[in-house]
Amino acid sequence: MESTAAEQLPEIIVLGPPAIFRSYDKKFSSRFRVLRPWESPLPLAQFLAAEAHNTQAALCSGESVPADLLRQLPALWLVVTPSAGVNHIDLLECRRRGIAVANAATTFSADVADLAVGLLLDVLRKISAGNRFVRNGLLSKKGTYPLGFKLGGKKVGIVGLGSIGLEVAKRLEAFGCTISYHSRNKKPSLTYVYHPDICKLALESDILILCCALTDQTHHMINREVLLALGKEGVIVNIARGPVIDEKALVYCLQQGEIAGAGLDVFEDEPRVPNELFELNNVVLTPHCAFFTEESLRDLYELICGNLEAFFSNKHLLSLVSEE
Amino acid sequence: MESTAAEQLPEIIVLGPPAIFRSYDKKFSSRFRVLRPWESPLPLAQFLAAEAHNTQAALCSGESVPADLLRQLPALWLVVTPSAGVNHIDLLECRRRGIAVANAATTFSADVADLAVGLLLDVLRKISAGNRFVRNGLLSKKGTYPLGFKLGGKKVGIVGLGSIGLEVAKRLEAFGCTISYHSRNKKPSLTYVYHPDICKLALESDILILCCALTDQTHHMINREVLLALGKEGVIVNIARGPVIDEKALVYCLQQGEIAGAGLDVFEDEPRVPNELFELNNVVLTPHCAFFTEESLRDLYELICGNLEAFFSNKHLLSLVSEE
Repeated sequence: MESTAAEQLPEIIVLGPPAIFRSYDKKFSSRFRVLRPWESPLPLAQFLAAEAHNTQAALCSGESVPADLLRQLPALWLVVTPSAGVNHIDLLECRRRGIAVANAATTFSADVADLAVGLLLDVLRKISAGNRFVRNGLLSKKGTYPLGFKLGGKKVGIVGLGSIGLEVAKRLEAFGCTISYHSRNKKPSLTYVYHPDICKLALESDILILCCALTDQTHHMINREVLLALGKEGVIVNIARGPVIDEKALVYCLQQGEIAGAGLDVFEDEPRVPNELFELNNVVLTPHCAFFTEESLRDLYELICGNLEAFFSNKHLLSLVSEE
Repeated sequence: MESTAAEQLPEIIVLGPPAIFRSYDKKFSSRFRVLRPWESPLPLAQFLAAEAHNTQAALCSGESVPADLLRQLPALWLVVTPSAGVNHIDLLECRRRGIAVANAATTFSADVADLAVGLLLDVLRKISAGNRFVRNGLLSKKGTYPLGFKLGGKKVGIVGLGSIGLEVAKRLEAFGCTISYHSRNKKPSLTYVYHPDICKLALESDILILCCALTDQTHHMINREVLLALGKEGVIVNIARGPVIDEKALVYCLQQGEIAGAGLDVFEDEPRVPNELFELNNVVLTPHCAFFTEESLRDLYELICGNLEAFFSNKHLLSLVSEE
């Protein structure tokens, strides 16, 4: 039985629930009266009809929030998503109804950029492979270890120069890299060289780092032609989304030595990772953890609560998604 | 039989030989007439007496170059070492004889700094461990992976702020870290906070990065007391020399969770690595490869030849080691 105090907290509905809610369940529950459809024996539609007819704010997960779900929340004014992307939410229906959408904004950008640099250093300097070498006792047995490659002086092509891409660029400049980029549009305020053609960017780069959103335009944008343009000494890092690369083409190019190496945090058909990648010493694979740090999760929790509390006290949202 | 052209090249003796000579043997031999004592059936002393009485320049390895070896090279004017450190050369005897010493200068600084940052990112963001997780097929089986820690905002203490330490600082500032340091003397030109006491530095830092030379003063400088001051959430990276850390104390602190993790490129008794480290998921071990890249080896070859050719044409050496 809930206390009267809890009854007086502003009501939100949590859909999913997202991982952030599981981690911060108690804290959310101390600030909001939380409707938890997944704990009810009722099917979602019945639960919403019975419990959520007055609910004004929803925290969703990365799962789809289609128009028919929104229609079952007739009093809804706000959807908060714990992701940077909002493709999973029916924005047309939100606009029609005047429902505001708030997202994770740039909470994860620094962490994702850090992992991109970490993966790149790992591939070039053979860190994970060196770790295997030492742990297998080969340092005392074999002694010598193959040389790595220097990061300084490399030409880095960034695909998608949003907040993550800019953070990557800032870090790699400190290592002495030269930055150029591909994106939908040239950014007039930046001095980095812009390549409207992705193949041209690959041709001119030693390293490609994928930081773009997954859209119809970027799906399989990195295909065999782009990889061949990157070339035998080229390295690719993907911290964007798996389907931005044609994974079959990537695996083939890595196997054939048509590119030099890859650092991959995302895969085309997660959680499946192609077995062929496990055979290769020149790839580093991480489990889609680019945005996962203790500190960012805490920041995200604060941002979500900040948005919800701003809404309930009629203030400006902290990370309102504006219409393009 | 050597050609007359080769006979006319300036003569050098190679001691060791160093790894750089093995990699660039042909190139060295096209520019110098090379004496190779290790290819002779004669003991070194006899070889030197028979062949090297007029030799003016020596390329040494990292092995000891004591006074009695120098005395067997009566015409010597120059020793070139492929290392940054010159502790292995009897500098007193060199000074007495007026023998110049040239070293690798800062050829490796950027590479070593890059590996320091790579190891740090790897420990904080669990990259090598994530790579094991994915390669063992656990992404599809287990799904969730433990959170890492954010690099931005961390307080980094650099131990030894020479050319490598400065390169590390420059890189980590781009990640949003705050830098302070310990070294023999305060560097008046820098704004980083200086701690004359290593324990105080550890106490004030989230991360310690060891970039100092190995001397009597730095041997076991990082002991149990310093590690406890660094604390349970602290991470240590060593790209300096193994004996700067009391390795037994480090292993114990890691096992007991008294520090959070370590990235180690060097070990106290190389090539031996303590087996206890292999059991730990929060350490990343690389095979003393911080200065090993294709590009730096080429730069080092050019620097060594530049020094030798400057000497033979009576010009200023490129990387003369000056007396303190």
